[in-house]
Amino acid sequence: MPVSRQMRLLSHPPGTRPVPGEVALEKVEVPDPGPGEVLVRNLYMAVDPGLLLRMRPLDGLVPDFPVGEVMWGHALGEVESSRDPALRPGDVVLHRLAWREFAVAPASTFRKVDADAYPSVSHHLSSAVVAYVGLRQTRIDPGDTVVVSSAAGAVGSVAGQLARIGGAGRVIGSVGSAAKVAFAVETLGFDEAFDYHDGWPDLGGVDVYYDNVGGRQLEAAIDAMRPHGRILLNGGTEQQLTGETYGIRNMQMVIAKRLTLQGFTTDDHPDLLPAFDREFPALVAGGAVVLHETIIDGLENIIAATRAQLDGAYLGKVLLRF
Amino acid sequence: MPVSRQMRLLSHPPGTRPVPGEVALEKVEVPDPGPGEVLVRNLYMAVDPGLLLRMRPLDGLVPDFPVGEVMWGHALGEVESSRDPALRPGDVVLHRLAWREFAVAPASTFRKVDADAYPSVSHHLSSAVVAYVGLRQTRIDPGDTVVVSSAAGAVGSVAGQLARIGGAGRVIGSVGSAAKVAFAVETLGFDEAFDYHDGWPDLGGVDVYYDNVGGRQLEAAIDAMRPHGRILLNGGTEQQLTGETYGIRNMQMVIAKRLTLQGFTTDDHPDLLPAFDREFPALVAGGAVVLHETIIDGLENIIAATRAQLDGAYLGKVLLRF
Repeated sequence: MPVSRQMRLLSHPPGTRPVPGEVALEKVEVPDPGPGEVLVRNLYMAVDPGLLLRMRPLDGLVPDFPVGEVMWGHALGEVESSRDPALRPGDVVLHRLAWREFAVAPASTFRKVDADAYPSVSHHLSSAVVAYVGLRQTRIDPGDTVVVSSAAGAVGSVAGQLARIGGAGRVIGSVGSAAKVAFAVETLGFDEAFDYHDGWPDLGGVDVYYDNVGGRQLEAAIDAMRPHGRILLNGGTEQQLTGETYGIRNMQMVIAKRLTLQGFTTDDHPDLLPAFDREFPALVAGGAVVLHETIIDGLENIIAATRAQLDGAYLGKVLLRF
Repeated sequence: MPVSRQMRLLSHPPGTRPVPGEVALEKVEVPDPGPGEVLVRNLYMAVDPGLLLRMRPLDGLVPDFPVGEVMWGHALGEVESSRDPALRPGDVVLHRLAWREFAVAPASTFRKVDADAYPSVSHHLSSAVVAYVGLRQTRIDPGDTVVVSSAAGAVGSVAGQLARIGGAGRVIGSVGSAAKVAFAVETLGFDEAFDYHDGWPDLGGVDVYYDNVGGRQLEAAIDAMRPHGRILLNGGTEQQLTGETYGIRNMQMVIAKRLTLQGFTTDDHPDLLPAFDREFPALVAGGAVVLHETIIDGLENIIAATRAQLDGAYLGKVLLRF
């Protein structure tokens, strides 16, 4: 019977960063799977701002983790033993039972993936599907200027690359450091990138803005848009990072420029997943899209990694490797 | 040769209300129309917040009236004499040469309308086309709850009635006084109305919000929307009235609720005008839509009327009768 380390929430973090005392790392014996159940050994879990968002009770935007429970989140694992014919030992599965080294649950909890679809099995945890679904909420006309915020992050890094493939003429990244400017241009192939701490430069007119941060950058984007521009609203990390609710003062320009602002979540679009699974892995395997990962080892390091990620320390998708 | 009174802009009003000294009412002799020109005697002009917006230089949202020039705006007139075969004496025409009792201009400046299309010829100056075009920027599902702000105003009063005809199950008006609450319910047939000064009540979920005011009411609407709700952004009178730029603090809810915010202007949709001209007058003539007007007499009273309108004194469309 394996022993699994897992992390339990002790209290909701009051601040904008989780601290170690708010969680407990504990060891439990993993039970044998019962009839219809599967034992999965986790390989990776995603480290993303949503983890913090679910640790803190924040305006009811997303369901909070209950205090006293083992937390959840996107994870990728390998089946160790199975008492359901749908899954076999060695199968690689996506699921939401993160924050633990082993998970036992009914087979329907897990979704089997093609372990060979991507160059690395960890790519199944990329945020590419968010970028993909988001861009399908609007059109990109040939030659459009597309700006992506958090362009060095998990979603933004892919959104910019997919916008280019979708016909954008100019792809510009907003990022938080000089190192990320270089990463966006040199590694991801953005045409340009800028450090938003210096304010948004004159971009010469923006047709599509893929927003991962909200707040001041959303306001800057509204100022920068061309008439009939489209803004995809996917995230509000500014508010999470600063703990401050910033008021958007230039909504008048949304009328004057006849802009469309579209909030979306990936969960609303299961219909797009088959096309994503069919199209996207080949783009990565063929080198058309770079999936950059930052990998942190050991569940004991996840709170520190979450803090560092919120502070902007990492590039691309951040994964915790068990 | 007739004498025409006209109004010239002397200086941009620095405040949120125009004052008489900023314009000059003058008398000029009206020249005879030259070849291809037409002499029009104005019957009515529209008194709307856009007049003030164009008198004040405000963020470049709309073109300002040049200081020293006679101002312009929507007007309805009757052809007195014509030197172009396209127009004849007695024809009723829509045009933009307001702020003057007579206008001489090339025939192409004027658009002939059917003088008998509506119960009153003044109805050609209604803001119904704005309501009509706005509602066509989104869908109304059968039974939807639709909220309209400035519901006793020129656009809002029609938007609510058209939303009902378009299938809304519940039409609610946000207005600025108890008298307007009664007007919206009793005269316009809204299901409910409330005075926004008391804050937005719990509306039980809103599917479509037709916004004429922006600012605090837009923020209240975002809080009140159901998931996948749609917000039509058509005006920002709050900012005009208060001179204050209010920041919208709950854009995170646009993501969480997957809302769509759509700015629009009527000028972008000339393709919808033939359908409007075909469909709308019959709705008024048949009594399905009430076009309420407040009529002020005399060009010398237009600045006072504009002030009173901005202060919320009037119901429905405000017209200046020459």
